[in-house]
Amino acid sequence: MLEAAKELGYVPNALAQRFARRKSGNVGVILPFVPKVHLFSTYYFAEILSGIGEAAKACNYDLLLIFREPDSPRDYAKLFRTQKVDACIVLGAQNVVEERAALAELQEEGYPFCLVNQRFDEEGYLTVDADHESGSYEAVQHLIAKGFKQIAFLNGPDAFSSSGDRLAGYKRALEESGIRHEDERIFTGNYSRKSGYEAASRLSEGIRSKRIDAVFVANDRMAIGLMDGLREYGIEAGKDIGLIGYDDSDSSRIVTPKLSTVSVPFYEMGRRAALKLLAAETEEPGNTILPVQLIKRETT
Amino acid sequence: MLEAAKELGYVPNALAQRFARRKSGNVGVILPFVPKVHLFSTYYFAEILSGIGEAAKACNYDLLLIFREPDSPRDYAKLFRTQKVDACIVLGAQNVVEERAALAELQEEGYPFCLVNQRFDEEGYLTVDADHESGSYEAVQHLIAKGFKQIAFLNGPDAFSSSGDRLAGYKRALEESGIRHEDERIFTGNYSRKSGYEAASRLSEGIRSKRIDAVFVANDRMAIGLMDGLREYGIEAGKDIGLIGYDDSDSSRIVTPKLSTVSVPFYEMGRRAALKLLAAETEEPGNTILPVQLIKRETT
Repeated sequence: MLEAAKELGYVPNALAQRFARRKSGNVGVILPFVPKVHLFSTYYFAEILSGIGEAAKACNYDLLLIFREPDSPRDYAKLFRTQKVDACIVLGAQNVVEERAALAELQEEGYPFCLVNQRFDEEGYLTVDADHESGSYEAVQHLIAKGFKQIAFLNGPDAFSSSGDRLAGYKRALEESGIRHEDERIFTGNYSRKSGYEAASRLSEGIRSKRIDAVFVANDRMAIGLMDGLREYGIEAGKDIGLIGYDDSDSSRIVTPKLSTVSVPFYEMGRRAALKLLAAETEEPGNTILPVQLIKRETT
Repeated sequence: MLEAAKELGYVPNALAQRFARRKSGNVGVILPFVPKVHLFSTYYFAEILSGIGEAAKACNYDLLLIFREPDSPRDYAKLFRTQKVDACIVLGAQNVVEERAALAELQEEGYPFCLVNQRFDEEGYLTVDADHESGSYEAVQHLIAKGFKQIAFLNGPDAFSSSGDRLAGYKRALEESGIRHEDERIFTGNYSRKSGYEAASRLSEGIRSKRIDAVFVANDRMAIGLMDGLREYGIEAGKDIGLIGYDDSDSSRIVTPKLSTVSVPFYEMGRRAALKLLAAETEEPGNTILPVQLIKRETT
């Protein structure tokens, strides 16, 4: 039946169907599950969930949290079929085959859903994202203005659209200033403090051999891990190298030296995603991209 | 029918019934709702929820978060009747008439539930708590050992059992050292940073007139607010007065000066509460009280 509809070029419009008929009274939030990680204690998820919670409460919905294990099947449509949720928000979605298939199924079956901080541009899904291209551009431009020229980039995994956005912003800032982009200055972590800490050994080589004088890091947790790691090589952020993070987390404001960063409105992103799905008066189809803001502190 | 059963002295045993028959696959978590407060970004709720989430995931349950507004009716039993949850954990429960009635109804109808960090001792509800009496005793004893004698106490609201526990521990430590307890040294806040900040004006009077030389505060957020507030009166914690908080939150470790405090295993409390309800192998009836730990830092 769905196959036939698809062949006829008919795909139900999630937008038209997004005013969920209330069955369960629940809005689902799909979250990545990482054992032993205190998920709600990470700035990123805590803020997005707080925003979702505020809007869900205002719309009289309860929040059903569904933890998705990295390697388990992603049967999101089942949540709707079994009437566990009336609408659903996907956090930490990745551009991988299983995820794309699970989201495509939601779309085909007309189940209302919204992505936060992850875009699949060609699909036209309901999405709330932040302008990470501009944020990264401004972060790197700020480093350049401070006199740094050999700027390394510690990015997140490829499967997230924000990684592509940040790389584009990084390259644009370098190009505009006539600085050649070198692949050897690009590093990858997984957003954990540990992966930032571990990157220190690779980065410290470049710093000692004068091929790196500053680092732009895709989130604050990795940046703070990197600060700690570099300290063990006798390298102090803000003194020996420039360093800028991303997120403007609580820790970035309290760490010593205080971390320059880019502020992302995670709370508002969560709130807007829930309103797109639940608030009848909202008319905000497709992609919503919120602005970010450069925050200059002691590490630059 | 329930009335008849009650008259015959028959009350279904929540313990015997706690192995929820799986209908919804959801464990409910009832949370206090405070508009504009980023609930998941508070250390207390973030940690308890992370622990609940870990255990729920292990038992293959999803988490249904239900935000309770302060003045709305508390119809917890409805969550079970409408099959939204198979079991439920109540956070931030208060010893007030509406709460007692809602919990009594759950108990009478045999719906499995567990309280975290709040006891109704005479009721025999499933509960996971921490030993706040001992924690407070040790905190105050530590202040006394440091030479402080006029120790004020900024407590939380009466409706929480932890407030009674902390007051008992505070008094016991004073009595054992032969220090007279004075009602004028007892203050009340609502656990918010703001309420700690606002308490500074009242406390600063006592400090200036030499009637207070140290303060024990019932949570870190109020303690940090108080530090900020006292600074405006020219009073520095750790220098002009002794100060000890409670919780061992992230902020207590990062603030300047570093805050002495009492570490509470919130993550483990959440985990144990969920396991009591969901894990068939656990045999932990009634009250579980976990130990806390004194953490000495720069403010004492």
